Amino acid sequence: MAQSSGKKEIVQGFSFAGLSCGIKESKNKDLGLIVSSIPAVTAGVFTTNRVKAAPVKISMEQIDAKKAQAIIINSGNANACTGHQGMIDAKKIIRKTARELSIAEDLVHMSSTGLIGKPLPVNLITAALPSLVSNLSPINIDDVATAIMTTDRFKKVIVKRIRIAGKTGTIAGIAKGAGMICPTMATMLSYLVTDIAVQPKALDSALRTAVNMSFNRLSVDNDMSTNDTVLAMANGMAANRPLNRTSADYRKFERALTALATDLARLIAKDGEGATKIVDIHVRGARTESDAEKVCRAVANSMLVKTALYGEDPNWGRILSAIGYSGADIDEDRVTIYLNGSRLYSKGKGIDKERVKSTLLSKEEITIRIDLGLGKKTAGFITSDLTEKYIQINAHYET
Amino acid sequence: MAQSSGKKEIVQGFSFAGLSCGIKESKNKDLGLIVSSIPAVTAGVFTTNRVKAAPVKISMEQIDAKKAQAIIINSGNANACTGHQGMIDAKKIIRKTARELSIAEDLVHMSSTGLIGKPLPVNLITAALPSLVSNLSPINIDDVATAIMTTDRFKKVIVKRIRIAGKTGTIAGIAKGAGMICPTMATMLSYLVTDIAVQPKALDSALRTAVNMSFNRLSVDNDMSTNDTVLAMANGMAANRPLNRTSADYRKFERALTALATDLARLIAKDGEGATKIVDIHVRGARTESDAEKVCRAVANSMLVKTALYGEDPNWGRILSAIGYSGADIDEDRVTIYLNGSRLYSKGKGIDKERVKSTLLSKEEITIRIDLGLGKKTAGFITSDLTEKYIQINAHYET
Repeated sequence: MAQSSGKKEIVQGFSFAGLSCGIKESKNKDLGLIVSSIPAVTAGVFTTNRVKAAPVKISMEQIDAKKAQAIIINSGNANACTGHQGMIDAKKIIRKTARELSIAEDLVHMSSTGLIGKPLPVNLITAALPSLVSNLSPINIDDVATAIMTTDRFKKVIVKRIRIAGKTGTIAGIAKGAGMICPTMATMLSYLVTDIAVQPKALDSALRTAVNMSFNRLSVDNDMSTNDTVLAMANGMAANRPLNRTSADYRKFERALTALATDLARLIAKDGEGATKIVDIHVRGARTESDAEKVCRAVANSMLVKTALYGEDPNWGRILSAIGYSGADIDEDRVTIYLNGSRLYSKGKGIDKERVKSTLLSKEEITIRIDLGLGKKTAGFITSDLTEKYIQINAHYET
Repeated sequence: MAQSSGKKEIVQGFSFAGLSCGIKESKNKDLGLIVSSIPAVTAGVFTTNRVKAAPVKISMEQIDAKKAQAIIINSGNANACTGHQGMIDAKKIIRKTARELSIAEDLVHMSSTGLIGKPLPVNLITAALPSLVSNLSPINIDDVATAIMTTDRFKKVIVKRIRIAGKTGTIAGIAKGAGMICPTMATMLSYLVTDIAVQPKALDSALRTAVNMSFNRLSVDNDMSTNDTVLAMANGMAANRPLNRTSADYRKFERALTALATDLARLIAKDGEGATKIVDIHVRGARTESDAEKVCRAVANSMLVKTALYGEDPNWGRILSAIGYSGADIDEDRVTIYLNGSRLYSKGKGIDKERVKSTLLSKEEITIRIDLGLGKKTAGFITSDLTEKYIQINAHYET
């Protein structure tokens, strides 16, 4: 298979390429490729939307093999709601990519993001495959991160090094934004690759934890795309003794993967279309973890809370009301609400807003801390504010 | 008790008054009163928000008696998150209203809507009670409808006549808007009064059906206020044989009450802050009623669907995606989606948007029909579009 060498690798054994094959009229990059020089242990988490794009359906079948070597990703066309033809098209591209890389077809995953309901321009993609493969390089990760962007304002790449079982390994992740433009363009895609050796069950379990603590705790507009996909590949080239779930360093790996995914999720929130603020929500004092999460989600998804934050209005009433309808067990007399460290509501009474510093919410980063005062469970969530720009973009975007 | 007479009654035995007592700085009407000349069978439905305003807590206790004679309502202050003092304040006003009307305290319900977290200006209200009572008239229903408005752009009054058991009766209803400005101002209040004789259990049951089919199928921004209240009073002055749930005409009454509540809900949707369109969603072909409702709610609450409708974009992809994540049992290949009568998606494929008439969504009233193709269950829902104005108002509204 084609492979670059001689340049300093970001993650041992992984190479990357991205280019414009002409799907996007803008001629921005729209085709990306990630390749491991050897088959890698692979795990995946996919949209729970009952309507799934063709490549998601295929990837969900392939993931059972827990092994892959390449991921081909196009932007500009989601290959969703394209019926039987969509499946044929995705499979054709997978076949051609495998042939170009001289690897087995079932080792190639595909993802798509972009407009839905339009046939995938298969010929544009297959024509570009030879150049794409010849562009593969161990340092071109930014090109893939750029090639998967749709309405993202910036590319999202995070690289972390960790020591595992006496070896130094690397985890690199890229992502594209979620829930900003529309389901046709709002897919959340993320690819996490590492040279650390991890056994299939352990990688699957670490990925699920990482996704639950990061992308699943992120809300821009609460819509869920037909194409959401997170794939993790571990090729073992760090030559550590492969981690299983009982390994001494498994938790360390899981924490690192979670931290990396959380950093990517924060970048997505920051890039939320029209967003001017990134909002961290921390709930504690809940009776159950599920209650803590319900409160997070209700506050994070309340349009009234999100518009208040945009208006820099310390409106604890909107937050309290969302807590009240969250479905969690709460007692309004025991709730305490802090905005950027200032206690605005406690013991059943809120402070007069005239007494709140007018600059309290003027920063770009806002923290909402909520103590339910009933137990010991906690949860966290990331969201953004809601602005006129979100509406303008989503109402007038040409799809 | 004070009572006007000699003018043509809207609903036999009911009189109404509304005036400005000075809570609103604008000097718009902010205090309303509804009185039945005799104690009426009374039923109520209240917010399920765990955080409840003081008057809601009191009303929920009183409703068990199933009997009331007066409702006093103020706007401009919600008496919510006001702690123990809020309860004392509401009870004081109830006591003074009862005294002014020479009726028992426990026959007086109170509701409040407006700013939260501020002490109720009790003295302004009690000082105005004598004039309010002297203004009572059988025709002043518009004054109450105006006095309960907060950010509503127009008052909402519906009157219907029906024949029940050989007698002609009337149902009159007023409402104020929901989910537009903020939880501090977004309370949905509605009062339905009738001279038809209805037994307590039958009134309760008919009211629950009416609310479930109307206000509970209405969504402007999916936030739920601390003050939401619907009260129904039936004083029996039409002198029909009192309806119970097995009466021949019970269904007719229930249908009329439901139709009236639905009309009020449509007026609320039309008045949705910043809304330019009222959107009717009809789902059929679901396996279960719960599935049909889930699909309605997901589509009605999708910010991406609502912004697309505002932009007059026939974006069936956003609708299909919301159907997909609704949690309902669906098969994307059996779903059919119609927008204003045009079939845009069926058998797994959508039509090219270039082929859709550009004026398809230019009307103020939009109908989304969804056939899941799996069963026989149906559901309906009312919503509005989502505009920049919603954001502007909610971000910058002075609370």
